[in-house]
Amino acid sequence: MAALPAKMQAVLLRQGGYSADAIPASEVRAVDRWLEQAEIDLPRPGPGQVLIKVIASMVNPSDLAFIQGGYGQPRVAGAPAGFEGVGTVVDGRGFLARRLRGQRVSFVVGPQGSGAWAEYALADAATVIRLRRDLRDEDAAALIVNPLTAAAMVDLVPEGGAFIASGAASQLGKLMAPLARERGKRMIGLVRRDAPAESLRALGATAVLNETSENFAAELAETLKAERPTVFLDCVAGSISARVFKAMGKDSRWVIYGKLTPEPPEILEPGTLIFMRKKIEGFWLVTWLAQTGLLRKLRTIKQVQARFADGRWHTDISARVPLRQVVSDLPKALQQCDGKVMITVQ
Amino acid sequence: MAALPAKMQAVLLRQGGYSADAIPASEVRAVDRWLEQAEIDLPRPGPGQVLIKVIASMVNPSDLAFIQGGYGQPRVAGAPAGFEGVGTVVDGRGFLARRLRGQRVSFVVGPQGSGAWAEYALADAATVIRLRRDLRDEDAAALIVNPLTAAAMVDLVPEGGAFIASGAASQLGKLMAPLARERGKRMIGLVRRDAPAESLRALGATAVLNETSENFAAELAETLKAERPTVFLDCVAGSISARVFKAMGKDSRWVIYGKLTPEPPEILEPGTLIFMRKKIEGFWLVTWLAQTGLLRKLRTIKQVQARFADGRWHTDISARVPLRQVVSDLPKALQQCDGKVMITVQ
Repeated sequence: MAALPAKMQAVLLRQGGYSADAIPASEVRAVDRWLEQAEIDLPRPGPGQVLIKVIASMVNPSDLAFIQGGYGQPRVAGAPAGFEGVGTVVDGRGFLARRLRGQRVSFVVGPQGSGAWAEYALADAATVIRLRRDLRDEDAAALIVNPLTAAAMVDLVPEGGAFIASGAASQLGKLMAPLARERGKRMIGLVRRDAPAESLRALGATAVLNETSENFAAELAETLKAERPTVFLDCVAGSISARVFKAMGKDSRWVIYGKLTPEPPEILEPGTLIFMRKKIEGFWLVTWLAQTGLLRKLRTIKQVQARFADGRWHTDISARVPLRQVVSDLPKALQQCDGKVMITVQ
Repeated sequence: MAALPAKMQAVLLRQGGYSADAIPASEVRAVDRWLEQAEIDLPRPGPGQVLIKVIASMVNPSDLAFIQGGYGQPRVAGAPAGFEGVGTVVDGRGFLARRLRGQRVSFVVGPQGSGAWAEYALADAATVIRLRRDLRDEDAAALIVNPLTAAAMVDLVPEGGAFIASGAASQLGKLMAPLARERGKRMIGLVRRDAPAESLRALGATAVLNETSENFAAELAETLKAERPTVFLDCVAGSISARVFKAMGKDSRWVIYGKLTPEPPEILEPGTLIFMRKKIEGFWLVTWLAQTGLLRKLRTIKQVQARFADGRWHTDISARVPLRQVVSDLPKALQQCDGKVMITVQ
């Protein structure tokens, strides 16, 4: 293996801590307030860590919330951004780390760590995923955050039950639709345009409703009556979310995992929490990873790789942005619909 | 035992089903829209039921919500109102019912049944509570709804933990304060006047805050910092509730068990549901009774009787209204603060 360089290119966080001013990804017109490109020292692995030479990394909604200070972890100014990617292990400390050397792996970094939007990144050796050879880099770069979230959230739906998913034209929605169908669970997708409806149905959604349609309230009522969903997986948490939850029946759970609108949602009929046992809660992959047993996690990850390898899942890349052009080109790439932005590093 | 009469006096529901127009008890100025006094046939016990000659019955917040159609069960027009009371078993069907004959019992009726605001009422034999002789009728008439709610809700608070209770000047608040202290749990009461604060502290509350005080926000912040409550038992579900929940820390639960304000509360920072694992749910005694094991229920009921018998708990009666004067006199009686209204039947 070639000697490691002393310096690397990276996209760095300019601000530390939190901020209350986060805006939705689709409205981001410039990122230079939060990000800068720079050459910095190569990070050094601590005990149990591996150093990964990054091939490609992803731009997830959680990245965009995090760089703006609107995610559940404080930023560290001067650290590279980016949670998730694929690369080759080139160094490491500890037995497991040494065994991984030379392997292609999918990885996530801790938010206080050395991020994935860089030529090299650090990750815990115990958390990286050794990859099957037949897995494309595009799928390997997006193997953890969205797929595990999709798998864990579809697991919240009772056997044979139905659920509602807002923002369903997203990559996450496209992962959940076929998974739900395969597990015998019915997905009702909420979208904001007609275009993605047909492809979501083809992927496996039982019903797709356009929130902006004049007939939305009537269509929702009819669909709820037919499908009786008890789980609402919601990345919007706005006024439409509040109305959807109000319309749902007994024992429903409103599971909020993102916040795409600025105004706070209302609890429209608190009495339904009392008399219909309805609940409102959150979902965060970090909490799921902390609370789920290792065997179940490993089984889920194995299933995820198999789904991508055999084509049941597919990561739609809408734009590729080279690492050195992230600060200038990311906003434009984000405005493309219904796909993911990938950062190409080498 | 004397022969039973064919007819009885009762306070009847005038409307069936639900209504969205419920108003808080303190604002009720007349009840003749919802209730009427009449002579009706004596109800007949079905299999497993007992007929109870009522001594006294209670007026609980749930009764006032129910007669207005704002409770979680549909009304039956022409059926007697009233959920809870004390009386003597005079008839019954089945082995258990026959064994109870002549006994003084506390009882609750099902909402579709024959209510407690009447000279005679029906209850399931398996759910009535045989009373210790040393228990006052005032305490026996209010033995189930509030005390079991207090015991079950204080049980939601972790060992050694703290909780917030809104509307804490209520009878329920007065039951929770000493129970919490005895169990090593710290109660932070929220009230709307200064007057009840001192007596709530004497009963066992760790802190009592006046929501209408200018310094409320600062006092709340300070108290949250010192006590770190993780449960918010809330009978108000209004805008102050939303602010209190927002200010609470990680893993907090907002448990709504009543709705004293008309406007819907907001979820002020949905991100805290995701990143701080905060949850919003309801509490209803009917659900608790259905989901809790018989042994635990019996143990709880035994403890409740003991607490009233030895004076650790005490029902404060602020007004007694004879059964025949309920329709005319109940509104005035409800305007008295900090106590319960009891309906005297014989």
